[in-house]
Amino acid sequence: MTRQLHLNAFLMTVGHHEAAWRLPESDPFAHIDVRHYQELARTAERGRLDSLFLADSPVLWNSIGRRPAGGLEPTVLLTALAGVTRHIGLIATASTTYNEPFNLARRFASLDHISGGRAGWNVVTTAGLDAARNFNLDELPSHRDRYERAAEFIDVARKLWDSWADDAPLGDKANGRWGDDSKIHPAGHVGRFFKVAGALNVPRSPQGHPLLVQAGSSADGKELAAKYADAVFTAQQTLEEAQAFYGDLKRQALAAGRDPDHIKILPGIVPAIGATEREALALEEELDRLIKPEYALRQLADTLRVSPADLQLDRQLPADLPAEDEIEGAKSRYTLIVELARREQLTVRQLIGRLGGGRGHRTFAGTPEQVADALQHWFENGAADGFNIMAPVLPSGLTAFVDHVVPILQSRGLFRTEYSGNTLREHYGLARPAVILEGA
Amino acid sequence: MTRQLHLNAFLMTVGHHEAAWRLPESDPFAHIDVRHYQELARTAERGRLDSLFLADSPVLWNSIGRRPAGGLEPTVLLTALAGVTRHIGLIATASTTYNEPFNLARRFASLDHISGGRAGWNVVTTAGLDAARNFNLDELPSHRDRYERAAEFIDVARKLWDSWADDAPLGDKANGRWGDDSKIHPAGHVGRFFKVAGALNVPRSPQGHPLLVQAGSSADGKELAAKYADAVFTAQQTLEEAQAFYGDLKRQALAAGRDPDHIKILPGIVPAIGATEREALALEEELDRLIKPEYALRQLADTLRVSPADLQLDRQLPADLPAEDEIEGAKSRYTLIVELARREQLTVRQLIGRLGGGRGHRTFAGTPEQVADALQHWFENGAADGFNIMAPVLPSGLTAFVDHVVPILQSRGLFRTEYSGNTLREHYGLARPAVILEGA
Repeated sequence: MTRQLHLNAFLMTVGHHEAAWRLPESDPFAHIDVRHYQELARTAERGRLDSLFLADSPVLWNSIGRRPAGGLEPTVLLTALAGVTRHIGLIATASTTYNEPFNLARRFASLDHISGGRAGWNVVTTAGLDAARNFNLDELPSHRDRYERAAEFIDVARKLWDSWADDAPLGDKANGRWGDDSKIHPAGHVGRFFKVAGALNVPRSPQGHPLLVQAGSSADGKELAAKYADAVFTAQQTLEEAQAFYGDLKRQALAAGRDPDHIKILPGIVPAIGATEREALALEEELDRLIKPEYALRQLADTLRVSPADLQLDRQLPADLPAEDEIEGAKSRYTLIVELARREQLTVRQLIGRLGGGRGHRTFAGTPEQVADALQHWFENGAADGFNIMAPVLPSGLTAFVDHVVPILQSRGLFRTEYSGNTLREHYGLARPAVILEGA
Repeated sequence: MTRQLHLNAFLMTVGHHEAAWRLPESDPFAHIDVRHYQELARTAERGRLDSLFLADSPVLWNSIGRRPAGGLEPTVLLTALAGVTRHIGLIATASTTYNEPFNLARRFASLDHISGGRAGWNVVTTAGLDAARNFNLDELPSHRDRYERAAEFIDVARKLWDSWADDAPLGDKANGRWGDDSKIHPAGHVGRFFKVAGALNVPRSPQGHPLLVQAGSSADGKELAAKYADAVFTAQQTLEEAQAFYGDLKRQALAAGRDPDHIKILPGIVPAIGATEREALALEEELDRLIKPEYALRQLADTLRVSPADLQLDRQLPADLPAEDEIEGAKSRYTLIVELARREQLTVRQLIGRLGGGRGHRTFAGTPEQVADALQHWFENGAADGFNIMAPVLPSGLTAFVDHVVPILQSRGLFRTEYSGNTLREHYGLARPAVILEGA
């Protein structure tokens, strides 16, 4: 069989474009209505997508004026989606900086049981002082410390997921012995950030380990991904950048002793789909027209660590911006934005338009055929194992992708026409991990 | 209308009796199967019960031999139950000692949105060194400290739930103004245990505050309940004890400036229901016969802080047990067990039988009529506002209660025949709290 694409639906409120909520078709309160997400999940499953995904950060943005603000907690929301779907994988973002491993490992194992093996965890370290200040801290922990904590957090979570052998439960009614205590292996973890003594209080889940996803593209982020990630979401603007990232990460995975094929790399794409190219461009233009630049300007200034007064809408970025290594959060996104602006000599207004569509992810307007071509081109040229589909408007953009782009990819033999497995790991072609005991 | 009973279904694996899983009818793995709980939730809703409830502790018991061990995390599991029910309240236990307020307030607000206003939180401080050792601690924090943290935790959670005014979201497409920033009130909390600066990242939920439940009956527990709880679950063995507890807590609520009618007190009852009294007793005897005493003996010794060798099955408890104020966890349960054994001069074997049925909660075997009489007697004699129904075997014990006891209570005018409200607060006759701003 031809090598197959992996497709993930990245769901965000009523669309990834920041002005999507202002369209006549959009319900501005859909992002707190579980039925909106249930409809999206059913649509993505109808398209036989591998998974759907929810981003998250434990903080409220500095303004609720700009776009639908706040949202439902992802592990809880995905549980509601598990009930209305049967196959599609369910990936929730959760922070290693602001959670405890025991609690989070338990929730993901629970979601894995409830969904029949469809849980995935997008591991984030959570940039931003505002989040730190919701968790007893006055300062953001350093980038390096956050990533060291993330690595140790995953180690602890794996110990907990492996703390029950698959055959620990017996259910032996006759002898009154429900389980075999010798098959329980307490975590016994003592590290720099965590001490976790016991075994998890839930039996091993269908996937053993929920799928691990990583989405930071800094040096620390790639190091973490190379060691642990089953899938990687990344923002890449050009084929060349995507190829470089792809090759680099696969090499790092190999160097870390892993099969490079066991880490699936999915760049994001924001496809504006139209029956004609003109219709697609018109949608993109309508959305950009609805952006209010004052919000975006303030966010851009925050990201660039400058004052909003330093940015002028019809000029290019100031020349004297800080270097990436002076940035303590969202390093790779910072560099991507600066490089995009410099490379294309964008004014601040143009840059805001580009970011408003996909927050640094690649945007693409075209017909279903053109979108399919764009995906296939990267997929066949060493830039991607699949894609993170970020519809600019939801649900309509996902429906268009499923109804018009997916059939083209299927007809080209690049994408499944039916699910062949039941678990998220199976969709991504990854084995169920065996229990690995320390020292065994 | 006659004063109405409130009924909560306390769900636990395949029943509250520790040997329930050994019955031929029981699926020993049902406690990790969401369909089992979905069936129970539908049954409880068919009976028009106010709510269902899940206990929890972030620790695996010291043996998985005794009974079905581990379980699905309650906020996640209740989300799955929200999807198959429309009215019944959904109450999850979560620890204030081993969570962060921002994360937990968010999850309960999310469940409240997803369920249309049916979320409740049973606030626990989590006794036991084993749990502490899963969260970076070498020692269990003192009882007093745990309760002080719990009170501050609830204060922070309420600030977060009130951090969005109900009218903060605008959805004003024409002016591109999704929400009104002046209606956001950051928590700005600085206390002994927590610093939480920001507003919650989810709009205010249907109930405003999820229902707050408290279940510890120690002096500290009652103080917390009197101040904060909307409902209280409690273990009471005799009418006199239950009356004393009921009167005491209502007085404390009044002293704390609250309307005593706004704190609903629900003692637990483990009803073994039979078509005849003989049949009910036979079920109870069959269950007790299936208890393996070695597990229960070890647990009893742990609870009493003695060695298992100090307990002899056919003798009474040793005379020289510690006083309650020397106990750092589960104080009130300790005293209840010791007093039960002393009052009824039970041997250790008999005590184990009583505890195996309901872990200190009142057990009662009888016909539906007798069970209804028992509930009505306490309800009409100042001992209860309703009951926590703890079926010894699930699902059969809940089905029997709903099909045979509930209709009797309804025919006596003591219990609703249809839901009159949509939210959990409405079922319990409690108002939706207004946003309370500091200093306002």
